[in-house]
Amino acid sequence: MPASGRPAEPLSPAETAVIEVAVEDDLQAIVALHAADAVGGHGDSWTPETEADYRAAFATLRDHPDHTLYVARHDGAIVGTFLLSFLPGLTGRGALHAQLRAVQVRADLRGQGLGARMVARAEDIAREKGAGVVELTSNLQRTKAHRFYERLGYARSHAGFKKKLG
Amino acid sequence: MPASGRPAEPLSPAETAVIEVAVEDDLQAIVALHAADAVGGHGDSWTPETEADYRAAFATLRDHPDHTLYVARHDGAIVGTFLLSFLPGLTGRGALHAQLRAVQVRADLRGQGLGARMVARAEDIAREKGAGVVELTSNLQRTKAHRFYERLGYARSHAGFKKKLG
Repeated sequence: MPASGRPAEPLSPAETAVIEVAVEDDLQAIVALHAADAVGGHGDSWTPETEADYRAAFATLRDHPDHTLYVARHDGAIVGTFLLSFLPGLTGRGALHAQLRAVQVRADLRGQGLGARMVARAEDIAREKGAGVVELTSNLQRTKAHRFYERLGYARSHAGFKKKLG
Repeated sequence: MPASGRPAEPLSPAETAVIEVAVEDDLQAIVALHAADAVGGHGDSWTPETEADYRAAFATLRDHPDHTLYVARHDGAIVGTFLLSFLPGLTGRGALHAQLRAVQVRADLRGQGLGARMVARAEDIAREKGAGVVELTSNLQRTKAHRFYERLGYARSHAGFKKKLG
């Protein structure tokens, strides 16, 4: 109990979750975070049929110098995830591009600051790597996420297009 | 002269330009295409001060297995360029993402089909590599480009955000 005599406000998982590089034991929980998100239509789910594909994708990311999968971990649970990618380019005098991808915060913890901590961590890593800009795309349906990124200083400057290949 | 007696319509550079992997001798002309494009604010220009940075960026792209710089070449001139990137991912059961970046067609040749040929080539390469989707972002100011991509079957599904790192 602090000296004031009031009981200390317990810290929320959003404040205390540890943000770190994912390990393979986190994989099923990461896929579950994506599966719980209906937007985007990636159709993710961890099943006996899909497990091998996810394990192969994890190994590719783990072994790739340009892409790193992160988790936010609290009390042994995975409460957030993002993928941070670095892409060389020619424009901007050969600027290195940092892309923030596949960002998820567990639904019950949204709006409590964990997402902002994850984005700040990604920006720190991007700065250390020498990227001048962090870019991301967000599905047009995710209007709350758009306001979130704008609050964090992101400018909505681009339209994002996709085409499925036949 | 064809058998009909009418002189053959000369083929336009947009139809005859050869689309191929860029070589270092193309670099100054590629940068000039980007420099001629006011949108985006990348501030590209080939000068004694910037040349070394562009050459280093070119070498990085040339040696990188995931990124390839292409040109459209006509009569020894560079009339178009794009950068095609492949990114591993976890969502979509570990789907490989193809990103079309830094697309430029020389201003006097726009609207004649060269851009469509370049995009089709990128899609063919992406298909061969096993990517199920091609994605791209386009500055909100480029409304003509947006209609162009929509005509080619691209769905405007995302908002693109950027933050400059301090």
